[in-house]
Amino acid sequence: MTCRIALTPGEPAGVGPDLMLQIAEQGWPHQLVAVADPALLAERAERLGLKIALLPYDPAEPPKAQAPGTLTVCPVPLGVPSEPGQLDAGNGAYVLETLRRAAEGNLSGEFAALVTGPVHKGIINQAGVAFSGHTEFFAEQSATAEVVMMLATEGLRVALVTTHLPLASVAKAITPDKLTRIVRILNQDLRSKFGIARPRIYVCGLNPHAGEGGHLGREEIEVIEPTLAQLRDEGMDLVGPLPADTLFQEKYLKDADAVLAMYHDQGLPVLKYKGFGKAVNITLGLPFIRTSVDHGTALDLAGTGRADTGSLLTAIHHAIKMVEKRT
Amino acid sequence: MTCRIALTPGEPAGVGPDLMLQIAEQGWPHQLVAVADPALLAERAERLGLKIALLPYDPAEPPKAQAPGTLTVCPVPLGVPSEPGQLDAGNGAYVLETLRRAAEGNLSGEFAALVTGPVHKGIINQAGVAFSGHTEFFAEQSATAEVVMMLATEGLRVALVTTHLPLASVAKAITPDKLTRIVRILNQDLRSKFGIARPRIYVCGLNPHAGEGGHLGREEIEVIEPTLAQLRDEGMDLVGPLPADTLFQEKYLKDADAVLAMYHDQGLPVLKYKGFGKAVNITLGLPFIRTSVDHGTALDLAGTGRADTGSLLTAIHHAIKMVEKRT
Repeated sequence: MTCRIALTPGEPAGVGPDLMLQIAEQGWPHQLVAVADPALLAERAERLGLKIALLPYDPAEPPKAQAPGTLTVCPVPLGVPSEPGQLDAGNGAYVLETLRRAAEGNLSGEFAALVTGPVHKGIINQAGVAFSGHTEFFAEQSATAEVVMMLATEGLRVALVTTHLPLASVAKAITPDKLTRIVRILNQDLRSKFGIARPRIYVCGLNPHAGEGGHLGREEIEVIEPTLAQLRDEGMDLVGPLPADTLFQEKYLKDADAVLAMYHDQGLPVLKYKGFGKAVNITLGLPFIRTSVDHGTALDLAGTGRADTGSLLTAIHHAIKMVEKRT
Repeated sequence: MTCRIALTPGEPAGVGPDLMLQIAEQGWPHQLVAVADPALLAERAERLGLKIALLPYDPAEPPKAQAPGTLTVCPVPLGVPSEPGQLDAGNGAYVLETLRRAAEGNLSGEFAALVTGPVHKGIINQAGVAFSGHTEFFAEQSATAEVVMMLATEGLRVALVTTHLPLASVAKAITPDKLTRIVRILNQDLRSKFGIARPRIYVCGLNPHAGEGGHLGREEIEVIEPTLAQLRDEGMDLVGPLPADTLFQEKYLKDADAVLAMYHDQGLPVLKYKGFGKAVNITLGLPFIRTSVDHGTALDLAGTGRADTGSLLTAIHHAIKMVEKRT
């Protein structure tokens, strides 16, 4: 069934607007609705020499496939005019409004998924709004207590127990409660959003060599193993805890629906190496499907036509696959 | 100039003896001297159906290239007969004696390099000898205060500031002193053992996103950056601290002679993923060249002929390249 997918270009001075226009050169099986200022998109398209027809968005009409060379736009006005590469705190509220509108439409069912471009946290905070990131923003807007960050690329999904935490705080943050909540969300969303009946999850240890029987740390024995045992009793297919340095090999990965890493730099270097510019960030636990590019605003590339659409294409493809597979 | 390279097969019940015989089917530009029990090697060769002539080792003769189908053997007698797959504490002293003999020959200049097969720490300790690993053993035997663990594969070298440490202890272990010592050894050995005139070293941050300006941890600001600045003043080419999740991409790696990761699971998953069975472990800081396979004893594969020579071949090739490039 054809549906609507909301796109937020994010920071207007960054590559987000460019990327939304670049990917609109091709056709899509679902309606792509950019939540943004149409004047910004028109100006950027002209600068890039792209002929993209910006179609008005009417929520009352049934969704239809997006024709090549077109992009549907749900209008949100800029606060101040935006120049490529020039951050302006006057557009902080604009960026947040695009996110709010897109999330609202996803919560109401108007949109089937949300794909986000890059925002610039610093400039939003300079605008006087406390903003720690897309994920926290959407969690709050949807009253979601806990979300899980997952990155994916062809052949590998990596979810994280802890995310943006100083390394010194990681070990203490891995509690039975935390781990239980994260594994449940991961397992549940792999079922409901990816259509995997009984996901097989490979779980990394916290310590080198997964603690080597307690010689290199006891968290595996005291926290991870008993927690996984309890979750297996609920019927989950959990393998591990396994040493992170040997787990990421094709012979294991081909059997894994996802790998759960304990922390950011344990799981993401290999994911991003494998994905080379084609990785997507997926937020699990939200009451809607949300994927995102895995890169920043790349201010120096905005308006140049040299922005790489790899990650955005992957993010949209993933959102579409999830929309079509969800149960 | 032709020289001698010592090989230690390590645990006699593991795949070490198999691998040494398997790689002896081909010829080598240097003399390969297996420090092991010749009877063990003869028995294992017969079991594998390999026709390898075991040549007696005479230190007084000049080194010569190793002909295909031959292996030179420096004899060390087993403690008790060894069966593939069956660990026996009676051979703990044997394994240590092979390591001692090989290291002694490297310290004296008799051998130009040392390539080690896998040992089984557990069974050596059961034999009543405190043994925490090859690296520590060689450091002690050569009175080396500090060594650096580096793994390498085609196109990537990763050295570690901390190695086999519980994750909870990592942050505190990264001190200016420790980091200075490690970087100096890495820089020095890339020069002297790899023949790189002015090595470019990419250094990972400790925290996610390299601390993101202090928001995700302050070790980059307080420890890593000032230490690197001081070392740059000595003329070193150090880049970073950089976020580990984006650093491991070909566009950066092609400029790096080595990446320095702050801890085990930050650097090794991506190295081993990239290397898939062709990674080598190199100990820097020792007064001789030492490379090693990056896998364990694989007891279940011993004597079957199914052991994969990829890592040992890589270890020998690296040792040879280092022997030929050292300054």
